[in-house]
Amino acid sequence: MDKGRLEAFSDGVIAILITIMVLELRVPQGADLAALRPLLPIFLIYVLSFVNLGIYWNNHHHMLAATDRINGKILWANMHLLFWLSLVPFVTGWMGENNFASVPTAIYGVVMLFAAISYTILQTMIVREHEANARLAAAVGKDVKGKLSLFCYILAIPLAFVHQFISNGLYVFVALMWLIPDRRIESKLNK
Amino acid sequence: MDKGRLEAFSDGVIAILITIMVLELRVPQGADLAALRPLLPIFLIYVLSFVNLGIYWNNHHHMLAATDRINGKILWANMHLLFWLSLVPFVTGWMGENNFASVPTAIYGVVMLFAAISYTILQTMIVREHEANARLAAAVGKDVKGKLSLFCYILAIPLAFVHQFISNGLYVFVALMWLIPDRRIESKLNK
Amino acid sequence: MDKGRLEAFSDGVIAILITIMVLELRVPQGADLAALRPLLPIFLIYVLSFVNLGIYWNNHHHMLAATDRINGKILWANMHLLFWLSLVPFVTGWMGENNFASVPTAIYGVVMLFAAISYTILQTMIVREHEANARLAAAVGKDVKGKLSLFCYILAIPLAFVHQFISNGLYVFVALMWLIPDRRIESKLNK
Amino acid sequence: MDKGRLEAFSDGVIAILITIMVLELRVPQGADLAALRPLLPIFLIYVLSFVNLGIYWNNHHHMLAATDRINGKILWANMHLLFWLSLVPFVTGWMGENNFASVPTAIYGVVMLFAAISYTILQTMIVREHEANARLAAAVGKDVKGKLSLFCYILAIPLAFVHQFISNGLYVFVALMWLIPDRRIESKLNK
Repeated sequence: MDKGRLEAFSDGVIAILITIMVLELRVPQGADLAALRPLLPIFLIYVLSFVNLGIYWNNHHHMLAATDRINGKILWANMHLLFWLSLVPFVTGWMGENNFASVPTAIYGVVMLFAAISYTILQTMIVREHEANARLAAAVGKDVKGKLSLFCYILAIPLAFVHQFISNGLYVFVALMWLIPDRRIESKLNK
Repeated sequence: MDKGRLEAFSDGVIAILITIMVLELRVPQGADLAALRPLLPIFLIYVLSFVNLGIYWNNHHHMLAATDRINGKILWANMHLLFWLSLVPFVTGWMGENNFASVPTAIYGVVMLFAAISYTILQTMIVREHEANARLAAAVGKDVKGKLSLFCYILAIPLAFVHQFISNGLYVFVALMWLIPDRRIESKLNK
Repeated sequence: MDKGRLEAFSDGVIAILITIMVLELRVPQGADLAALRPLLPIFLIYVLSFVNLGIYWNNHHHMLAATDRINGKILWANMHLLFWLSLVPFVTGWMGENNFASVPTAIYGVVMLFAAISYTILQTMIVREHEANARLAAAVGKDVKGKLSLFCYILAIPLAFVHQFISNGLYVFVALMWLIPDRRIESKLNK
Repeated sequence: MDKGRLEAFSDGVIAILITIMVLELRVPQGADLAALRPLLPIFLIYVLSFVNLGIYWNNHHHMLAATDRINGKILWANMHLLFWLSLVPFVTGWMGENNFASVPTAIYGVVMLFAAISYTILQTMIVREHEANARLAAAVGKDVKGKLSLFCYILAIPLAFVHQFISNGLYVFVALMWLIPDRRIESKLNK
């Protein structure tokens, strides 16, 4: 089965999600800089979610580039990932409009945790289909970053009730960890 | 005529529909878990519609993968299918915001019934264009699932006025029937 | 210059426009059939605009399929067409919410007229770039349908102030004229 | 690394942004031409932003067409560009709904300036990856237009507080500068 349409459909969904979020930045009433001030928390969380969706697209791109073929299970594992990602604009808006309150911050972590779990499931399905593909296995490796992300999200959910900035700090940490270029993997893929 | 753009356009429309639905999950006023409770029916029906659109995309993907060429009639049969699918976000929102009331539940069935009919028409057009294509004929087969889906939707529409949970049960049954992997077909396609 | 991205971008924009229109079908307050009644004019005009955008996509698909290469002017002529098409959801909503009043009906015609003019410009640019391409010239032919559409829209704009149903009849007539399969062209393309 | 998905994803995001803006043109209450009058400034700025996004898509298309391969840094530089472009519908709406007031006009310039800077970064990354690619180097050239655009935006931001029409004039000037076909570059690309 060809992977072309799986990529195109995922590109479409992630592109729409990343742009739908900006609709939460509602045009303010006033025409001065003060009118923008209440939008600041919404803008900050928008940047975080934009980066997070960008990371998912990036990783999805890399993983699929090393994939030769897909099957029915992979199609549904991918749809499962897209489902959790589709909730990102909702939790982004809820958290932004409530000034990073505890419950929305925790629920943001829940959605990010399930997105990370569903990505891990998709990755496992693809690796299983490509047992002899050393290039994919090397690209995924021990997936230390993936495991660390899962751990951070699990930690961040209860900690939102201690202080929400601990959770937000963890979310930013996970995003930065993925943003830092990982030369080791890229060099292996380019071999 | 090349099938590439037909696939790309359908991917685009289905990707947008699947993500537009999440806009119905409006960011609630409060910042506690209680604020999420009124969203629960909307969320449940969102999951059902997400799965349904995912099934259509999946089946469309499989059918087109076994298709060699398209013609003008197939283009319009496809547009007809996309028209009925485009009404899914509307009926999803109406049903969700009215707590699964009878009329919206029945209308949901009407839209799903017409989507299923238009898919059957598209399938018939494609099979007719590929008379000698044994691979496509085998993939479509007797289309037992397709016929059973049509039957369930026809049943669900009047039964919504007896009790809407019968209809909702039927909708969930149809979705599950398609979600369960059908190894027989996949193995035939992989031959 | 490759035509792939021009097709992909146009597919994306038209797919979004065709699905954005359904957002005008706002979820009604009540849960009975009476709640749907005020939506009927909006629904009818939605069907018309869906078909019109479908026709544009279809014709765009056929024309580009017969195109070998594009240039900077074609890129901008295409962007110009997309601009007028992007106004279709707005005029569709305005006409639907005002029960086919005269002014919105006339403005609908103005937008459709400019869309048709911009399509003609795009077609002329492409034909000029492919002077020796007999296949494209045959596919476009004398463009009787295109000229008749322009004429109907020019007629429909002032007639909306006599009675808006004359204009709406003309809009439906143009759509039906394009929907009826034109075997002559298809057979020429398939040669 | 293949550039196909980078193009597809960018096409998707820009196509969505260009069509999301039209949602700001809210369907007016009345059904006469007077009802359209308050929409005029929103419409004018919509045209400007449509053209600006069209220019970005056009230039992105040309640059990527001359690109052979991409790397991780280019992926993120592209995402950075898409981030700034994603803010265009917001500033377009804010400026349009406030009749070109000074602050929204200045902020429009800020967003356009950062979009132009991020495009320059992307261009630099791509040129660095293709050191020996004379075709790309020739296509980019001295990038006089790019530098002049940056300069105009830097000028327009403070001048919005002198008179906003100076800034708006500068925005229109930059757009026209890119719209005028640049035969020199096209002829070099076609060699």
